[in-house]
Amino acid sequence: MAAHTAVIEKTIQKLLEEKKYHTLKDVMSTMEPADIAGVFEEIEEDRIPILFRLLPKEIAAETFAELDPEWQELLIRGFSDTELKEVVNELYVDDAAELVDEMPANVVERILAQADTQKRKEINEILMYPDNSAGSVMTTEYVSLRPTMSVADAITRIRRTGVNKETIYTCYVTQERKLVGIVSVKDLLLAPEDDMAVEEIMEENVISVGTHTDREEVARALTRYDFMALPVVDTDGRMVGIITFDDAIDILVEETTEDIEKMAGMLPSEKTYLHSSPFDLFRHRIPWLALLMVSATFTGMIITGFENALAAQVVLTAFIPMLMDTGGNSGSQASVTIIRALSLGELEFSDLPEVIWKEARTAVLCGLSLGMLCFGKIMLFDRLILGNTSITVLTTLTVCFTMAVTVLIAKLVGCTLPMIAKRLGFDPAVMASPFITTLVDALSLLVYFRIATALLF
Amino acid sequence: MAAHTAVIEKTIQKLLEEKKYHTLKDVMSTMEPADIAGVFEEIEEDRIPILFRLLPKEIAAETFAELDPEWQELLIRGFSDTELKEVVNELYVDDAAELVDEMPANVVERILAQADTQKRKEINEILMYPDNSAGSVMTTEYVSLRPTMSVADAITRIRRTGVNKETIYTCYVTQERKLVGIVSVKDLLLAPEDDMAVEEIMEENVISVGTHTDREEVARALTRYDFMALPVVDTDGRMVGIITFDDAIDILVEETTEDIEKMAGMLPSEKTYLHSSPFDLFRHRIPWLALLMVSATFTGMIITGFENALAAQVVLTAFIPMLMDTGGNSGSQASVTIIRALSLGELEFSDLPEVIWKEARTAVLCGLSLGMLCFGKIMLFDRLILGNTSITVLTTLTVCFTMAVTVLIAKLVGCTLPMIAKRLGFDPAVMASPFITTLVDALSLLVYFRIATALLF
Repeated sequence: MAAHTAVIEKTIQKLLEEKKYHTLKDVMSTMEPADIAGVFEEIEEDRIPILFRLLPKEIAAETFAELDPEWQELLIRGFSDTELKEVVNELYVDDAAELVDEMPANVVERILAQADTQKRKEINEILMYPDNSAGSVMTTEYVSLRPTMSVADAITRIRRTGVNKETIYTCYVTQERKLVGIVSVKDLLLAPEDDMAVEEIMEENVISVGTHTDREEVARALTRYDFMALPVVDTDGRMVGIITFDDAIDILVEETTEDIEKMAGMLPSEKTYLHSSPFDLFRHRIPWLALLMVSATFTGMIITGFENALAAQVVLTAFIPMLMDTGGNSGSQASVTIIRALSLGELEFSDLPEVIWKEARTAVLCGLSLGMLCFGKIMLFDRLILGNTSITVLTTLTVCFTMAVTVLIAKLVGCTLPMIAKRLGFDPAVMASPFITTLVDALSLLVYFRIATALLF
Repeated sequence: MAAHTAVIEKTIQKLLEEKKYHTLKDVMSTMEPADIAGVFEEIEEDRIPILFRLLPKEIAAETFAELDPEWQELLIRGFSDTELKEVVNELYVDDAAELVDEMPANVVERILAQADTQKRKEINEILMYPDNSAGSVMTTEYVSLRPTMSVADAITRIRRTGVNKETIYTCYVTQERKLVGIVSVKDLLLAPEDDMAVEEIMEENVISVGTHTDREEVARALTRYDFMALPVVDTDGRMVGIITFDDAIDILVEETTEDIEKMAGMLPSEKTYLHSSPFDLFRHRIPWLALLMVSATFTGMIITGFENALAAQVVLTAFIPMLMDTGGNSGSQASVTIIRALSLGELEFSDLPEVIWKEARTAVLCGLSLGMLCFGKIMLFDRLILGNTSITVLTTLTVCFTMAVTVLIAKLVGCTLPMIAKRLGFDPAVMASPFITTLVDALSLLVYFRIATALLF
């Protein structure tokens, strides 16, 4: 955020110190709510309520919705009941539900007490749905039309009821609360005649999602079809809400960040980096670090098992890091590619044979090239240039052969595990680099010592 | 794609074999273009032209735009000039420009020959802009209004000219081609009176991007402000095009996939996994694998340098994988977190001191916990349970102390390198796991042998 708001932040700070409230009001009215929120999160906490009270009503609610929960709580604690009432009832219902979901119990009580009856009912409906389901992120504020309405009537209805709707551009045609079609404002405006019925121009093949559909799946569907919003229906086909593209984008960004965090062996966090304390970071990072450290015991045991061989041929030890790193890198290339393709919906479990066959051929190409490169490197650099005479052709062959086999194993493990995880209902992202690396390390050492035993002893 | 279209694909295949063209036409008219494109990419190549000719005109162009370039080329090669003309002129100009950008020269010639004069002019304008710039991904088809127009006239203008515009919902108010404001269809429809001038209700604080702004930055801005489209202006403030939210989503997904690929040590690829040949995968994966393998030479040299020490205390070797893996994991946790925060615009180079301080404290927490856990594990498991008597308390202390220092180094290297890379204009994603791992490996071994020399010999 710093980048966008660095300069204006200084201006606002200075104007605040000089108590130029009129100027401040004018300045903030020219700004986007997201940027005002950005400034709020950077300035001293006790200044925020003053600034917030200077905002025009419409901007105030939008800015409030853009703030992180800790700032929202701070503001609410300072609000009078009247101020709270104004903000809560101006919020879109999905933002209000998210707020209620994130605040501590005593704050929630105050919020619900100030919400209008209708708003409270809708907030509670949304909160009924399980976390991360379509129902929990939808908004219940959309434009609904009847199939028999004329185009002119439909436009009138939109003009009358549109102010508080999150989008007016896609309208939902319902009959006895069942979703029977959609019609866009574009279709309505471009309709050849004003007295045509809505049902004549509506699209009847409507793509909708269920209330319990996973929110990531909803976001992917919206992206796939380039829709502005997707309708959410209950098990009886009754229309209950919509999810808009801007929420879908936020969901995609959040889910991708979670995937990336998991792939790097971290528990996903909801806070941004600058807002996370070292202890937050520690809590999210230590579980995998500890688990992987302990599981490296196996690798250690393998080495201990071949202690005598290593003592006789210490030169073998020097190649362990190279073999382990190359194995780890090969494996994580495969696993990360597969995890991303799974998450973009490009791959299914049924593609497993094709994936294995493709990775096997890729691994042979990579393994052969690396093996040969490695042979050249060791013979030329380590042996000739560095003059390490304990390296023999047989040692080099052992290393290169291990290299090729390790790459093959790594790629196969790397592509298979995420797909199996997905199939078993686990998150494939967990099967990424750190886990694969630990497994491949152990396997590559076993291969190394087997080959060494066969060739050298 | 398989998941969405698996069933309908079989239906369509069967209907094709039975030559039931009428039914096929009816079936495909109910489908979304993205899904039809999904089916096309799965069925036999020689069947696609037949299916394509069955599509209604509007759907045909949209389906064409959704196809991957190889299928687009296949179709164009089979098109008559009349067919090509129809498709090209029905495409939105940004899709047409992308098509021209991706086709081989002889196909491009045919496309441009069939495009209307106006379309050809606009395609050429877009192609002038550098790759990945806002200009290269914008569309020039938007609704422009004059400030003095009445609301009623504006709505009439939208109804008259809207059919071919990519979005009609945000209209751009221009004066002598300069962008002076924006007004949404919602504002126009909800305006209190029909004879108000557009300039009375338009928003004058317009956020716009330059033609040369990086496309990822544009996508981030659009996401940040939840806009449906962003206007693109040239250096003189003249309006030249818009970028819509659906293109922004595609850009975000593509750029994130690129980041993830780079973080896993791969060159980014534009093809989906199932469409990549093993040789494609090989080409994208081998450069980093080879580079990292060769750079592991340093790690090897460090081990060789301490060969005598290792020969005397072979037990030290058994802990090398654990130390290296934990170092690698700690480093990539930090680097991946920082890279993601940089790419989401949450961090700037000026935050470096804060980042280093935060990572240092996190590293101390992680390092101490892991060090203690490691001490317990080695003494209890390796020494007592496995009865490995060559492990002394001093050896264990050496390992645990190295562990703590390695974690500290890894976290600091992991957080610093991506930020420096960004500052120097390189892509921070390249500074992720594989690179950090190799560097941390070398450093952790140096620390290990220094500490071992001090404590054990």
